Amino acid sequence: MDFIYWFDILGTFVFAISGTLAAGEKQLDLFGAVFIGFVTAIGGGTLRDVMIGVHPVSWICSMDYFYAIVLAVGITFFFKDFVLKLRHALFLFDTIGIGVFTIIGLEKALSYGINMPIAVIMGILTAVAGGIIRDTLNNEVPLIFHKEIYATACLLGALCFLLFQSLGLNVIWNQLITILIIILIRIASIKYNLSLPHIEIK
Amino acid sequence: MDFIYWFDILGTFVFAISGTLAAGEKQLDLFGAVFIGFVTAIGGGTLRDVMIGVHPVSWICSMDYFYAIVLAVGITFFFKDFVLKLRHALFLFDTIGIGVFTIIGLEKALSYGINMPIAVIMGILTAVAGGIIRDTLNNEVPLIFHKEIYATACLLGALCFLLFQSLGLNVIWNQLITILIIILIRIASIKYNLSLPHIEIK
Amino acid sequence: MDFIYWFDILGTFVFAISGTLAAGEKQLDLFGAVFIGFVTAIGGGTLRDVMIGVHPVSWICSMDYFYAIVLAVGITFFFKDFVLKLRHALFLFDTIGIGVFTIIGLEKALSYGINMPIAVIMGILTAVAGGIIRDTLNNEVPLIFHKEIYATACLLGALCFLLFQSLGLNVIWNQLITILIIILIRIASIKYNLSLPHIEIK
Repeated sequence: MDFIYWFDILGTFVFAISGTLAAGEKQLDLFGAVFIGFVTAIGGGTLRDVMIGVHPVSWICSMDYFYAIVLAVGITFFFKDFVLKLRHALFLFDTIGIGVFTIIGLEKALSYGINMPIAVIMGILTAVAGGIIRDTLNNEVPLIFHKEIYATACLLGALCFLLFQSLGLNVIWNQLITILIIILIRIASIKYNLSLPHIEIK
Repeated sequence: MDFIYWFDILGTFVFAISGTLAAGEKQLDLFGAVFIGFVTAIGGGTLRDVMIGVHPVSWICSMDYFYAIVLAVGITFFFKDFVLKLRHALFLFDTIGIGVFTIIGLEKALSYGINMPIAVIMGILTAVAGGIIRDTLNNEVPLIFHKEIYATACLLGALCFLLFQSLGLNVIWNQLITILIIILIRIASIKYNLSLPHIEIK
Repeated sequence: MDFIYWFDILGTFVFAISGTLAAGEKQLDLFGAVFIGFVTAIGGGTLRDVMIGVHPVSWICSMDYFYAIVLAVGITFFFKDFVLKLRHALFLFDTIGIGVFTIIGLEKALSYGINMPIAVIMGILTAVAGGIIRDTLNNEVPLIFHKEIYATACLLGALCFLLFQSLGLNVIWNQLITILIIILIRIASIKYNLSLPHIEIK
């Protein structure tokens, strides 16, 4: 039960809030909010586990994810004005969540013998798939397909993790440093308004 | 092959009809109707089995699901006026399907050692995920995210099942009674126009 | 490493192009293109493997799929005018891809002891599910639900494969001939503007 486990729960909590807020934009009911909150929070890890062949998938095996999600959806649903005021703090937590999810996904894939490039994909997928499912259920083209550096931050962080690992860095330090790298790249990309090139076909 | 197995097939049949009718609202072709009919009928159970780690997933292992779905799609596609006239009966069968799917999903999860709160989620998911995939494929925000008591009926029925089980009730009676509870809650919610609170963010 | 393996990679390559072009129609960014390219290419096989219980899913186990997809997305993203000029050739490759995916999916399901009708469904699913996920992520009703003979070609090819197999035809010849049958049916359906009947509910 090291620090990354509790960061994982924190990421789950914040992702569930983001799902509930998205449900609010479509005026969904409590069940819609719970459902979208859940899949936003556990969608990425679930897809990863199912494709690697880990079962039952991870969120089923610990009640902490369940409690974190129920708490997040409840608070957001019933105190939405309060939650909306905290958006700056939420952005930071969300970014921490992305970083943690990427490194957890990467390490889990590696621990199952998945080769490195695919393990990097699994790390990115862990971080981004929940938001993609959230937007798809909400009948929108996923936000991260056309705005912001987001998956790129995950990619660079995952590559740094592999590099530092090959250089023999202690795993705890490696986790901390690469999560921080992901956070910094994402914050920098917002600050300097960076985005990826687009493709346009008429 | 107890009664719940045949109720499961009946639920599959009715869910496939609901998928085909939804396909009709988008003027889809026969393949679209078959595909949406299939995923509406087997989507919930498939997601549950994949997350628990049951494989092959259940509908693959018995041809009865296949026959029920093909029959349901065929009848609805080619005799849609007849099927539409039966909507009241269909509503009842659909509600039976929801009840059966919830209790089957719950019991299956419990039998794989999943703990109770997550097993309840698996029960609800079995009942609702097919309809959610149906609406998503049809490019709509899922109906049950903003209308009707539906998942709530499943939740209450699942909790009653666990309660009665802990009180030592015979499993067959427990199945029958809790399915009936789900049906009655859903019918009452329609009759008295009950709905869950909504969240709205401008 | 017989011919069908390399046709599989070719199919993966062309499906990834089709995903990237779809991303272009929504003006997505590079990550959106990569993501949709990926799921279009590997979505069908992944769903099949997950439902049968093959894990890790097949694309995770060979780097060839990864290279084919990255190459396809890169070429399409940065040389889209060139790729668009090749649309006729792409259509042919796409059709080859559909044929190969169907037969691969069918054979894989059979090799895991899945019974024939369900194995046929697995073959069709391997061919069509990637495109369905592509359109759903792109916030469109899937194209193949309302246009063209497509799944029907897969179905007829799969049935021919089972027929020829029961007649004792050598497996390589059987693969070649049934893939060709799928290609010819699809081309004929475009040429003669064939489509399936539609269902319409007002």
